[in-house]
Amino acid sequence: MSNRMVKLARRPKGMVKRDDFTIEDGPVPEPGAGEMRVKIEYISLDPAMRGWMNDTKSYSPPVGLGEVMRSFSAGTVEKSNNPAFKSGDAVQGMFGVRRYAISKGERVLKVDTRQAPLQRWIGGLGMPGWTAYFGLLEVGQPKAGETVVVSAASGAVGSVVGQIAKIKGCRAVGIAGGPDKCRYVTQELGFDACIDYKAGNLAAQLKEACPKGIDVNFENVGGEILDTVLLQMNVFGRIALCGLISAYNATEAPAGPKNIRAVLTQRLKMQGLIVTDWASRVPEAITQLGQWHKEGKLKIREDVREGGIDAFPDVLNLLYTSGNFGKLVLKV
Amino acid sequence: MSNRMVKLARRPKGMVKRDDFTIEDGPVPEPGAGEMRVKIEYISLDPAMRGWMNDTKSYSPPVGLGEVMRSFSAGTVEKSNNPAFKSGDAVQGMFGVRRYAISKGERVLKVDTRQAPLQRWIGGLGMPGWTAYFGLLEVGQPKAGETVVVSAASGAVGSVVGQIAKIKGCRAVGIAGGPDKCRYVTQELGFDACIDYKAGNLAAQLKEACPKGIDVNFENVGGEILDTVLLQMNVFGRIALCGLISAYNATEAPAGPKNIRAVLTQRLKMQGLIVTDWASRVPEAITQLGQWHKEGKLKIREDVREGGIDAFPDVLNLLYTSGNFGKLVLKV
Repeated sequence: MSNRMVKLARRPKGMVKRDDFTIEDGPVPEPGAGEMRVKIEYISLDPAMRGWMNDTKSYSPPVGLGEVMRSFSAGTVEKSNNPAFKSGDAVQGMFGVRRYAISKGERVLKVDTRQAPLQRWIGGLGMPGWTAYFGLLEVGQPKAGETVVVSAASGAVGSVVGQIAKIKGCRAVGIAGGPDKCRYVTQELGFDACIDYKAGNLAAQLKEACPKGIDVNFENVGGEILDTVLLQMNVFGRIALCGLISAYNATEAPAGPKNIRAVLTQRLKMQGLIVTDWASRVPEAITQLGQWHKEGKLKIREDVREGGIDAFPDVLNLLYTSGNFGKLVLKV
Repeated sequence: MSNRMVKLARRPKGMVKRDDFTIEDGPVPEPGAGEMRVKIEYISLDPAMRGWMNDTKSYSPPVGLGEVMRSFSAGTVEKSNNPAFKSGDAVQGMFGVRRYAISKGERVLKVDTRQAPLQRWIGGLGMPGWTAYFGLLEVGQPKAGETVVVSAASGAVGSVVGQIAKIKGCRAVGIAGGPDKCRYVTQELGFDACIDYKAGNLAAQLKEACPKGIDVNFENVGGEILDTVLLQMNVFGRIALCGLISAYNATEAPAGPKNIRAVLTQRLKMQGLIVTDWASRVPEAITQLGQWHKEGKLKIREDVREGGIDAFPDVLNLLYTSGNFGKLVLKV
């Protein structure tokens, strides 16, 4: 038994490579006073991870060179000296890319695996779900009858955004890559339409899917997709800027939205969001998402990859090549 | 006596040229029932005019080919069949680029030339002043102690924005072109600092002028200025997007803000604004701006150009070459 872990060895340029990391074994750690040991079972792969590896000013400090790579993970408490947790508890938290983590229990959440399987608590019922919930409802402010467009619609955040939009009485239009994902988005998740951006002619497809224009854009991608959406936004529309995944592996500053003038002429509100800004309201999100999930109104799909800790760099890159289908999770 | 007027003859490419217009004489018009004739004395040159000449979707329809060029103007009622106005009344409204206009009085405002000279009612106390007032207070939401940065700071809107920021207890930092304008902005208008973007090293200058970062950006210019400001915005900062004058004469879609990622990571709110959205509250703006003006807290400078109707194309271009100093007005 060893504690295999991924440490950041150098700052990646472009897509991450195996050599950007050291992957090594350490001893299985013993919890000290007030601490617990978590055996990690699933590691969440999130688009924001790529940004955490850069040494640039951002909402959280970069992962230091030589440090274990930051990640959300889910696992089981093996040994606890913390009265709030006991052996056998299923938990999720920012445990990092490793087999075993020591935690004081800060920002660790006990989860109910009878309600949903463990991996779902780092997906649709975890941080990506909370992001969708607060981002759409607080920033997007959708009203019944409005049209909501979400990019990366089959992904961890986008899939929840569109389903909440439907629950709120909106027209939900997804943008995803390829016919399989689009079929899933409409037939399984119940979006009103889904546009395959790989099929070309995004503007015309979008116009057909949004005959009354776009009131809310939940933006995960940026680049050409955002530029196309901008020109079809309605007056007083809202853009919840959640991600710009198309640019995360850029080696020089990518072009900005050339249609930014629409923000002015249509009086749009474009607002950035990071889920931690609603940290105190996470219980509300969990309760509501859990309720919808139980009622069958919220369908969630994980794309669980095997390969263990060593597969981390390759699996992470799937996010940036549209290689995943559903919330991407690494089983360890 | 003739009614000299400027009509749009073709859609300009880049800066406007004399040949983009026909400038012709017509008869002095007679007001019909319910109408009045206004003798125009001052025509407002506004950055937005360039956009009105383009055949693109915007907040107001483009000026049609063969139509009199749209403009705010101020003048005196000469003859009135409208009971709400009488001969001799000083008025401002969207009368167009011509010597005489017929109006039914819709969206025409009687102004008090004892309180401020006529030309000021199409400047700091007119639409540009209202834009500054609602844009800063409603979109920018400045709080005492915060830092407000405004570009085109010696211009019609920017000069008022910074002075209102000071009145509200903020640090006001302007961006303007050249040492004379910067001196005016700090010494006459009372901004805390003004950056000469023509002097180079905008980022370093901005950092020195905004040691606590930027909370509110009132953006009139766009381009490199917006990109530089974006990287120094504080978390939860607001960007009131009022104008993108750097791009108005572009012949192809200009590059967008390449630092748009800051909107996400800093959770900024970027919101477009058009003053007509607060049309019902214009009286409030006039009363408050007038009060500050009377108390000497609001200084306003016009750059009045001679040359009459025929000078319109050349004078308009001054806006896009930083050729004006204060609110640009054409005397006719």
